[in-house]
Amino acid sequence: MKFGGTSVADLERIRHVAELVSQEAAKGNEVAVVVSAMSGQTNRLVGYVDALSADSDIGGSIDDEYDAIVASGEQVTSGLLAIALRRRGVKARSWQGWQIPLQTDGAHASARIKDIETLAFNQSLKDGIVGVVAGFQGISPEGRVSTLGRGGSDTSAVALAVALKADRCDIYTDVDGVYTTDPRIVSDARRLKRIAFEEMLELASQGAKVLQTRSVELAMNNNLPIRVLTSFAKPGVPNPGTLVCAEDENMEERVVSGVAYSRDEAQISLLKLRDVPGIVANICATMSQANVIVDMIVQGTSRKEDQANIVFTVGRRDVEKAVAALEAAQEKIGFGSILVNDKVSKVSIVGIGMRSHTGVAHTMFEALADRGINIEVIATSEIKISVLIDTEYTELAVRALHSAFELEVES
Amino acid sequence: MKFGGTSVADLERIRHVAELVSQEAAKGNEVAVVVSAMSGQTNRLVGYVDALSADSDIGGSIDDEYDAIVASGEQVTSGLLAIALRRRGVKARSWQGWQIPLQTDGAHASARIKDIETLAFNQSLKDGIVGVVAGFQGISPEGRVSTLGRGGSDTSAVALAVALKADRCDIYTDVDGVYTTDPRIVSDARRLKRIAFEEMLELASQGAKVLQTRSVELAMNNNLPIRVLTSFAKPGVPNPGTLVCAEDENMEERVVSGVAYSRDEAQISLLKLRDVPGIVANICATMSQANVIVDMIVQGTSRKEDQANIVFTVGRRDVEKAVAALEAAQEKIGFGSILVNDKVSKVSIVGIGMRSHTGVAHTMFEALADRGINIEVIATSEIKISVLIDTEYTELAVRALHSAFELEVES
Repeated sequence: MKFGGTSVADLERIRHVAELVSQEAAKGNEVAVVVSAMSGQTNRLVGYVDALSADSDIGGSIDDEYDAIVASGEQVTSGLLAIALRRRGVKARSWQGWQIPLQTDGAHASARIKDIETLAFNQSLKDGIVGVVAGFQGISPEGRVSTLGRGGSDTSAVALAVALKADRCDIYTDVDGVYTTDPRIVSDARRLKRIAFEEMLELASQGAKVLQTRSVELAMNNNLPIRVLTSFAKPGVPNPGTLVCAEDENMEERVVSGVAYSRDEAQISLLKLRDVPGIVANICATMSQANVIVDMIVQGTSRKEDQANIVFTVGRRDVEKAVAALEAAQEKIGFGSILVNDKVSKVSIVGIGMRSHTGVAHTMFEALADRGINIEVIATSEIKISVLIDTEYTELAVRALHSAFELEVES
Repeated sequence: MKFGGTSVADLERIRHVAELVSQEAAKGNEVAVVVSAMSGQTNRLVGYVDALSADSDIGGSIDDEYDAIVASGEQVTSGLLAIALRRRGVKARSWQGWQIPLQTDGAHASARIKDIETLAFNQSLKDGIVGVVAGFQGISPEGRVSTLGRGGSDTSAVALAVALKADRCDIYTDVDGVYTTDPRIVSDARRLKRIAFEEMLELASQGAKVLQTRSVELAMNNNLPIRVLTSFAKPGVPNPGTLVCAEDENMEERVVSGVAYSRDEAQISLLKLRDVPGIVANICATMSQANVIVDMIVQGTSRKEDQANIVFTVGRRDVEKAVAALEAAQEKIGFGSILVNDKVSKVSIVGIGMRSHTGVAHTMFEALADRGINIEVIATSEIKISVLIDTEYTELAVRALHSAFELEVES
């Protein structure tokens, strides 16, 4: 069971979480719980770090100390939940990352899990003691506290569930499952009962915020079912959530499972390309050196000027970095000018049914054309079609696609 | 160097501490720093624990989780100070109790230090890296976080200094040294340049709050000089503080070094004692079982009724516990009635010069009698005389004694 920051926001919420955990333990299950910091605490701690860190630029990286400081938030929650459980008569103890230990690499502030030693932890579970784990953190090869980066608690939880050979990882959050799209945009968006790992992964990568991409990858690679459900359900009200699991026949009959969108996009066009070989490779290398991730990429020829151009997208916050790097490499890449458009959104449809259904792209483009929405760039995978559009049309496009694929109707 | 909670209360204070540490490092010293939690943080965390813990009385002790939670406050400060040091160009890293490791026993919430492994820590110091240690905490034999109890940061600092064979342990606080008495009561109280370990120990036990008793004991047993000084000194103003060290000739010439007082006292009288053997032993055993510490104890005979009685003192907050335990043991101890007076204070004079000077008690009793102050109980050691008086006369008694022994005059 994993509980995020809003689910453990204050003592009242922690008591409620203790009740949910005790219900699970009462069923005779061995339960490991992973918790985030109480909401607000991580921001408080990061605020301290940022303020001191900004005093000068000498002394190099402070990521190791950032980790030592920020990881304390989860340690507090794990201890508090252990107390709340004991006071309900449930045997429990807290575990910090180094105590398990959850071994990571040495990339402070964005460490990756290397290994989880489960011997002592498992024995404690078998002794009937609920293990309450401080999420988001581990121990580096140098014996320092490391953190997995923001959202790392989901990844901690799934990795621990995999290591423990758990039957399931229940991720409690402030929404009651995975929806066909954002219910704030489409009022008849529907909670999915089940969704395939691959679909969840695409939805998460394309902008759905319910689960971290890394945690879904990890679950998929280990075939560990994840259940997404809310910790805010009223007592007695069923709270089935959404099961994220390996695909089954029922899912395959569904053409499209969800519509995702992201407004954090920017489109960069390189115009008047000279005939330099390996242009895409050069762009990718330049962006990679600048630590900028390239998402969609399309090479084309302008009809007007009969000159090659290339269009690609990056995260909006990376635009300045990307442009600076491109300008520095202008000679090597061989382009005439750069055009930036950061008023773009990416809208995607995702569904494993696309593999076996034809006409999906046609339905999508027609639905958008009917509303007068121009498509700037298209990118596809086996189970996904993404389009880049003017950001003003984001909600309209999402509604059009949700309706065109009849996602409001239970399949 | 040890900095308490008010010295690291906010980022501005932490920056100032970084400056003090960097000055010390610039002299070519290897520096280990022990820090407390930012003031207020420990109370915040203890508040959470108390609230959850009070939900019910099932589930037994939660001291292990209390420790895991509360120790996080010092971890945050140590990381922040390491960052502040790096940004001043001083190489530094934080150390949590388990990383050193500082081994304690398993008595959570009031653990005692068993051993400090200094190999890695010392190597880091020798590499020119300032070690910033989270005070107040260690690791239990079970690999859990343990804390040394309130004020334990002083003890951490002294124990670490001893283990590292440090030349000195500088304890920075919000006062500029050890005074002949509380300057809030006696306006011409004087900062002592030097004070003997034994004197400091008696002053701390008798109510002076500047240093924790345990930390002074530890320093004395290992002959490690402690310097008490302020972290709030203006730049450029000398800040010599008070050196607590082994006694020297100069100190021995001083009859009395300081006057301490404590208002946290209560006097318990057992009246109409029957002739039961081992009465004092029975009282002490009863109090010990109730976890109440007996301080002064006097056996006497009431002139009026020609009956034996016994008078002793306990901490004021323990009175109810003590009375309940005594009433339960009334038959065994053999007394007629109990009289409680919690309007009493203890005032003490301390000085290693008492060993070789006569007439000290006489001067003390005369000074009190001159002001019409009655003495309820007297207790003495080789270097201390304590009297129990009506609490209303506390300040008057302190002033009378300070003046009678001319403590305002540099000896």
